[in-house]
Amino acid sequence: MSKDITRGGQFLVKETKCENVFTPEDFTEEQIMMRDSVKEFIDKEIWPNKERFEKKDYAFTEASMRKAGELGLLGVAVPEAYGGLEMGFISTMLVCDYISGATGSFSTAFGAHTGIGTMPITLYGNEEQKKKYVPKLASGEWFGAYCLTEPDAGSDANSGKTKAVLSADGSHYTITGQKMWISNAGFCNLFIVFARIEDDKNITGFIVENDPSNGITLGEEEHKLGIRASSTRQVFFSDTKVPVENMLSERGNGFKIAMNALNVGRIKLAAACLDSQRRLITQSVKYANERIQFKTPIASFGAIRTKLAEMATNAYVGEAASYRAAASIEDRINQRIAEGNTHQEAELKGVEEFAIECSILKVAVSEDVQSCADEGIQIFGGMGFSEDTPMESAWRDARIARIYEGTNEINRMLAVGMLIKKAMKGHVDLLGPAMKVADELMSIPSFDVPDYSELFAEEKEMISKLKQAFLMVAGSAVQKFGPDLEKHQALLMAASDMMIEIYMAESAILRTEKLAKLKGEENIKEQIAMAQLYLYHAVDIIGQKGKEGIASFAEEDEQRVMLMGLRRFTKYVNLPNVNALRETIASKLVEANEYVF
Amino acid sequence: MSKDITRGGQFLVKETKCENVFTPEDFTEEQIMMRDSVKEFIDKEIWPNKERFEKKDYAFTEASMRKAGELGLLGVAVPEAYGGLEMGFISTMLVCDYISGATGSFSTAFGAHTGIGTMPITLYGNEEQKKKYVPKLASGEWFGAYCLTEPDAGSDANSGKTKAVLSADGSHYTITGQKMWISNAGFCNLFIVFARIEDDKNITGFIVENDPSNGITLGEEEHKLGIRASSTRQVFFSDTKVPVENMLSERGNGFKIAMNALNVGRIKLAAACLDSQRRLITQSVKYANERIQFKTPIASFGAIRTKLAEMATNAYVGEAASYRAAASIEDRINQRIAEGNTHQEAELKGVEEFAIECSILKVAVSEDVQSCADEGIQIFGGMGFSEDTPMESAWRDARIARIYEGTNEINRMLAVGMLIKKAMKGHVDLLGPAMKVADELMSIPSFDVPDYSELFAEEKEMISKLKQAFLMVAGSAVQKFGPDLEKHQALLMAASDMMIEIYMAESAILRTEKLAKLKGEENIKEQIAMAQLYLYHAVDIIGQKGKEGIASFAEEDEQRVMLMGLRRFTKYVNLPNVNALRETIASKLVEANEYVF
Repeated sequence: MSKDITRGGQFLVKETKCENVFTPEDFTEEQIMMRDSVKEFIDKEIWPNKERFEKKDYAFTEASMRKAGELGLLGVAVPEAYGGLEMGFISTMLVCDYISGATGSFSTAFGAHTGIGTMPITLYGNEEQKKKYVPKLASGEWFGAYCLTEPDAGSDANSGKTKAVLSADGSHYTITGQKMWISNAGFCNLFIVFARIEDDKNITGFIVENDPSNGITLGEEEHKLGIRASSTRQVFFSDTKVPVENMLSERGNGFKIAMNALNVGRIKLAAACLDSQRRLITQSVKYANERIQFKTPIASFGAIRTKLAEMATNAYVGEAASYRAAASIEDRINQRIAEGNTHQEAELKGVEEFAIECSILKVAVSEDVQSCADEGIQIFGGMGFSEDTPMESAWRDARIARIYEGTNEINRMLAVGMLIKKAMKGHVDLLGPAMKVADELMSIPSFDVPDYSELFAEEKEMISKLKQAFLMVAGSAVQKFGPDLEKHQALLMAASDMMIEIYMAESAILRTEKLAKLKGEENIKEQIAMAQLYLYHAVDIIGQKGKEGIASFAEEDEQRVMLMGLRRFTKYVNLPNVNALRETIASKLVEANEYVF
Repeated sequence: MSKDITRGGQFLVKETKCENVFTPEDFTEEQIMMRDSVKEFIDKEIWPNKERFEKKDYAFTEASMRKAGELGLLGVAVPEAYGGLEMGFISTMLVCDYISGATGSFSTAFGAHTGIGTMPITLYGNEEQKKKYVPKLASGEWFGAYCLTEPDAGSDANSGKTKAVLSADGSHYTITGQKMWISNAGFCNLFIVFARIEDDKNITGFIVENDPSNGITLGEEEHKLGIRASSTRQVFFSDTKVPVENMLSERGNGFKIAMNALNVGRIKLAAACLDSQRRLITQSVKYANERIQFKTPIASFGAIRTKLAEMATNAYVGEAASYRAAASIEDRINQRIAEGNTHQEAELKGVEEFAIECSILKVAVSEDVQSCADEGIQIFGGMGFSEDTPMESAWRDARIARIYEGTNEINRMLAVGMLIKKAMKGHVDLLGPAMKVADELMSIPSFDVPDYSELFAEEKEMISKLKQAFLMVAGSAVQKFGPDLEKHQALLMAASDMMIEIYMAESAILRTEKLAKLKGEENIKEQIAMAQLYLYHAVDIIGQKGKEGIASFAEEDEQRVMLMGLRRFTKYVNLPNVNALRETIASKLVEANEYVF
């Protein structure tokens, strides 16, 4: 394989060439067709019925899911052998992306079913299990739900109290326990249930068919801030009999299944926060062009244009990073298959390899969609606060994305924690590069006037400096605290923010650099501005979080040296004029009257 | 008068001594009694009935307002001559603050009635009008509403199309037009209506009794993101007859009335965002202490403690700044009364004088309560997304505060715009100090090791440097663009953020310095930490916004000099360890199990 396949987390220590990065401009014909048919489905079936979702029409959610099943959309990631389309990881992401733009209610139902409801079986199920259940799930004849969370086991998912007891004759387990926040509970046919056998350290996964006569009862629908028509209930298991052959993978493997399902769930959730942003931006631009105040469309005001530019930039960068990571995963899966892994093993390991990127994306894109909806409300002014405009539900719906699939706090800490583990296992060499940074701190900086005539020359140098900043802070923290670092959560969160911004900003630059080669710099000046604007903010955040981190563990001379290093690593030679960048971006949006990037 | 009375906006160019600042620690016995009785009313009547407000029980909102009237709470700001308690501005703020903690629905009804519904009459009404209407409004026999906004006139309030036509016999006006987003419309007895007479440049205010037989009809209740039980309707006037004696103030004076009513409304809205924060923090701490994950209360985790510390800091600082400004206004009113103004004139002018601070507070505190509720949800995790916990409605309710009484964007621009106008009128000398900063930029910085042994010695120096940073950026911008500056909204917004942070951070330091003198430094280490933490963030924001501003209008040498200046003005000699500060604050909260500052 000629492609240079980066390992998960390695973006922090090596330079990535734009040729080696997949971008939304690289979608194949097949992928574009898939995207367009999903878009058509949403435009026709879901968007015009937004109100029904806001009115908690759970039956309509189910009916819409059924329709998606008829169109084959529920089986995109499922192997052909089990009735699916067996499309690659990028295509799967694309479907998650475009299916989610209209309402979080449908998006959640779709994600819960195809992701955590179906995938544990395709990834961990044995042949019998897959044959029996997956075709039904892929076609939408059956729906799945995922029962991990309990009243006392949320972020601490492995601490659940649900029990599975083997029958005397060894033929079945009896499951008893209470599960909470179960998406799709109201209409699903099958639960993936995690329960503990005896006093096992780790929980075990089971496939449990929904059968009220088998001790399964549901709580009332939860009344929630958003995703109103996503069915969310408690599920009570009381001596529910499950045949032994319905155990998923092996005894005690449930926590691993749960975590891997969440890895995939996280990156797909990021995708599922993208189209919502595109639609919100389009709605905002249209409103700003129509709404006249002070005798002019409010789209002519700098305060509004600033918002539009920032919203579009985040969407563009979120896209860049999401599909970059999706392609890394797909490449890794293909590489493993080429090396002789089964598809199932390859997919498992491929996603696990990029678990860091999955967490990064989940955090970054879920926060972007929230701020997009928030600024959208502000552009709509009083109208934005009304249920009659699309901003209102979007803002509420976006809120859950920062909580489920692991809160953004948990994901921030996981991202750094996993990186450190990878470094310890030797999968990513952090130590070498960190020591090189330490040497560089002691060296005299070059006073040569650099040549920045090429596109992104300074920006790419900046990305490399930002990585040095991260390595300096994270490296010293690891050295200082060792394994105790995990107790310093505020520091971990700061390091994580640095990491997140590096991945996102680098993805922005790489996408745009590749695009420039395709279309010519002069034709993509708005995209160039977006990449530069994103990087500018990233530099600010990294400078801020780095400073917080350094001040929390370094003193006197050590602090001075590190702060000086941080300043050097976050210093522009040519400070961008961010207002001018925003203006470039906003002009295009306002002229096009929609999101066009 | 011995007190040094600062003029509005002057905080930017002069040093304020803590002795000259009013703080929440200075409340009189009478004020504390008032506060406690309001708190008791809320705890007894409103908080336990939160659910009714979420279920859109408009009648309950009205009944609660009636009860507040019986307790005299609707007449706090009203002169005794018209049935009120005639308490000072600080007391009025205190009531707005503590009456608003439980739900935005009641808070909005209260604010709309006592503020913009009643105040235009007490401030601009003639003796007849005041005698006729104010006692009924003060007792809660009648309720008031304020009809300014129209479908096509939101931020551009003076562009309304509602017409007032004088009758042939000169006895009355006929008002025709459509008003929108009218709080309390569903149950009010009286409207303050703004309408245009002929082709007047400015609108005119009228007192209009609510009488359906007089061409007044109401739209349906609007369905809104938050403040669900605040009655919000359109109001249609069709040939509504209003006696000429019901004109408020003079013809064409309506825009002025509207703007002045909004000034007062803004600072009161800031107060009305305070108690909500205290309650949310208390709820969050309690939950974090109770919720066990990973075998320990989540209150022990750094990620949670960071949030608690930041939430408490914003509440503490919001309080400091709100009551500081309230006292400035009260002092100014008293001074004007002493100088011979009527109470009415004095109050009008007193508030107008501090319109800049009113806008600053509206923006800062409305954003604080939003982020407080947002972090509260995150602390509650999945439960935070449920309507069963108080975070959910608080987050939705908080959203309107950033929109009404002028969007935060409008208020940001107003704050800077008003400052520039004051400077041009010679009411605040910006030019002198700005020129001094320019000189200082050219001078060689001192390399003496400063003596920072006294409490806040470095912080106070920092505040003074931050003011220099603002003067440098704003001064150059004014010089560069002249009156065209108003077209550079992104730059105005950046300058405004600098201004806002200076006022808030200075208020935090002053409150705490005064408190230290009262209680001793060793007894207020958490408050010291909060003041330092707030300032730290303010320095970051001012550095960032300053840089954005500079890059947007200065180039080459000029840019270099200004950036160097900005760096000098935002540089700590002793960089605070913000994680340690947060830990100090969080420890106290977690131990006390409630907001205690």
